[in-house]
Amino acid sequence: MSSVVEIIAIGDEIVSGEITNTNASFLAQELWQQGLAVKYHTTVRDDERDIADCLIRACGRAGIVIVTGGLGPTMDDFTIEVAAKVFGAKLVEDAETLRRLHGFAQRRGRVLTENSKKQALVPEGAKIFANHVGTAPGIYYGHQGALFYFLPGVPAEMKDLFLRSVLPDILARQKRRPHFKIKYLKTFGAPEAELDHLLSDLAHDRTQIENARVGFRAHFPETTIKLSLWDEDEEAASEHLQRVVDLVLTRVGKYVYSFDRNATLEEVVVKELIAKKKTLAVAESCTGGLLADRITDVSGASEIFLGGVVAYANDLKQGFLGVSPETLAKYGEVSPQCAEEMVRGIQRQTGAQLCVSVTGIAGPTGGTKDKPVGTVHIATLFDGKVQNHAHDFAFPRRNFKILVTSVMLKSILARVS
Amino acid sequence: MSSVVEIIAIGDEIVSGEITNTNASFLAQELWQQGLAVKYHTTVRDDERDIADCLIRACGRAGIVIVTGGLGPTMDDFTIEVAAKVFGAKLVEDAETLRRLHGFAQRRGRVLTENSKKQALVPEGAKIFANHVGTAPGIYYGHQGALFYFLPGVPAEMKDLFLRSVLPDILARQKRRPHFKIKYLKTFGAPEAELDHLLSDLAHDRTQIENARVGFRAHFPETTIKLSLWDEDEEAASEHLQRVVDLVLTRVGKYVYSFDRNATLEEVVVKELIAKKKTLAVAESCTGGLLADRITDVSGASEIFLGGVVAYANDLKQGFLGVSPETLAKYGEVSPQCAEEMVRGIQRQTGAQLCVSVTGIAGPTGGTKDKPVGTVHIATLFDGKVQNHAHDFAFPRRNFKILVTSVMLKSILARVS
Repeated sequence: MSSVVEIIAIGDEIVSGEITNTNASFLAQELWQQGLAVKYHTTVRDDERDIADCLIRACGRAGIVIVTGGLGPTMDDFTIEVAAKVFGAKLVEDAETLRRLHGFAQRRGRVLTENSKKQALVPEGAKIFANHVGTAPGIYYGHQGALFYFLPGVPAEMKDLFLRSVLPDILARQKRRPHFKIKYLKTFGAPEAELDHLLSDLAHDRTQIENARVGFRAHFPETTIKLSLWDEDEEAASEHLQRVVDLVLTRVGKYVYSFDRNATLEEVVVKELIAKKKTLAVAESCTGGLLADRITDVSGASEIFLGGVVAYANDLKQGFLGVSPETLAKYGEVSPQCAEEMVRGIQRQTGAQLCVSVTGIAGPTGGTKDKPVGTVHIATLFDGKVQNHAHDFAFPRRNFKILVTSVMLKSILARVS
Repeated sequence: MSSVVEIIAIGDEIVSGEITNTNASFLAQELWQQGLAVKYHTTVRDDERDIADCLIRACGRAGIVIVTGGLGPTMDDFTIEVAAKVFGAKLVEDAETLRRLHGFAQRRGRVLTENSKKQALVPEGAKIFANHVGTAPGIYYGHQGALFYFLPGVPAEMKDLFLRSVLPDILARQKRRPHFKIKYLKTFGAPEAELDHLLSDLAHDRTQIENARVGFRAHFPETTIKLSLWDEDEEAASEHLQRVVDLVLTRVGKYVYSFDRNATLEEVVVKELIAKKKTLAVAESCTGGLLADRITDVSGASEIFLGGVVAYANDLKQGFLGVSPETLAKYGEVSPQCAEEMVRGIQRQTGAQLCVSVTGIAGPTGGTKDKPVGTVHIATLFDGKVQNHAHDFAFPRRNFKILVTSVMLKSILARVS
């Protein structure tokens, strides 16, 4: 069987450019990291003939075909009908999928509509992968020596199904290959170019790392370093990878916050606070609630997170946090003095063991000559001691908020670790 | 000549997923807005045979073919060589391009290298478009009735060349075509399947909408409805579209919050509050700050947004918002009574004209039999009057927060509009 991979995206909204095909790059990266050679990406409209042509062509040139999109309940979703025709297979109702669809509707207090039932129709003989995020299942079907996988187009559903079920299924069907290992180093605090600079000799002279590969993937404001290699067997590959990781950590270790590629900075912070049994409260101004939002995205955050204040207007800095009018008049709201009074105020009000505050100018307006857009003052309070941090981050509004909250999370970590 | 368009991207870095093919969505959108029917996107590696196959296939199914990538100076850039072979054309040096390449190098204090000169080679008879951003020119070549355009893969160069020269060239070669119009209806409050149900007769019997097209795009928790059509000229198309929009609004009007495809619910809320000169404050529990975060993502929010409280722990519901211990003991924190006291508390503390509060169980843990995960109570306070809303949203944690904050935004709109 050919291990050449083709990725097919189906949907008017992709062909028309309304949405960018990020599914293809996600899938290609994941497959590539397993040593599977993605050679073609194809995108076609919700059109029966185009979809059929595309599936037939893929069969002739690829051994693994991943198809995303067109599995929904609406009338313009007919990927599976077309595929069944191409495969010469009958469509049958999958009882387990139908049961899940009923359950899904029921949990939302609805009755399963007739058009939604369509999502339980699959080509006879197909293998079905349950969708844990949405409704349409993943489907495997073998045809003329090629493995066909059908996935929903919604990225969250596609990713979960792919990582949970499809990728393991593909790998299980592969012949024995030399062993592949990969490690992800999630970093925050240094831009990609700096990490690249710190590691560039290793990438250029790969004898130092025994031919391992060093890759970077920037996802603002973080960068993930990927270290990957092939070796004879599981054990050799593990030991080899450990040597490479150890060497890389001597260069960039201070920026690494996790080896789990799916971990987030907020998860690491919440876990650390739970482990250290410390409670947390936050006083935000320019970040507008994003820090509290990120922390409360972590399941279990309620064990340590008491809450916070979004003191956007100055009156609330006084009313909720007790910042003195004199401080506001003398130093202004964007000042280390104000940040310090905010952090002392939130501690007094909540009794949390660790507190953090921020005040700054997100822009695009509100800057002055002395305090330009991007000026930020952060204060942390722990064990009765306040630490102040000043920054200057001139970024677009959303990126500014993300970057500042990441710096705050890192400063929380620094105080408790 | 067929006006079907195929977009081809060439490059290992796209096929491997290292970079996402944003060129394709840019080009497709631009072409679509001119009524040119993009039907295929194809991506292939830097491989001579794959590129040749791809050009030959495009010739058979498209009238306009836009190729990006592989025009650079390095050894893995050979799009033009391959194309010349497919076209049966000789490669010739374009004097004007060579002159520009020399100038480009000179302005950077360099001498033009031998491999860079390759960028001046074009198929004999081609039309050349000067690159105002980088080095490789855009190239037009007609072959077997199809228009081929070659553009660099670097997005900034591609976009400049496309908008400056290629798109005008394509349009100049088109015969008079009927006029194309499209309208986007951004909706919140009904799932995609329900909207589909409300409009399915129009999509099936398109005579009712004079052959316009109805499309849906779901982006949790919202759905955008697309209405598009062709008509004789600008005026006829505009009037035709207005009739279709009016009809569709009689069915789904209550879910539509904007006709601007780039608008967000939070933007619409902030603009409405600014227009009505009403200040806003929020008291959040289970949404953990996401509502404040979404509101403060809108530039200008500080005109109306005073701030808020994230009262995650019960103590803060008492301390910051004055929720009475009796209410908490009698009804629990997840109750309409608690939501009402929270909204009255935040109003008292901030003096905002419009206030909203929420308390609920985001899950995955914390549910009980009476109050399962997903239970939500929202209260709004405006003009002294409180309104309560209860919901039951069993969704994964992040989706729960997004959905609940969208419901809160919609309930703010309902109170001020």
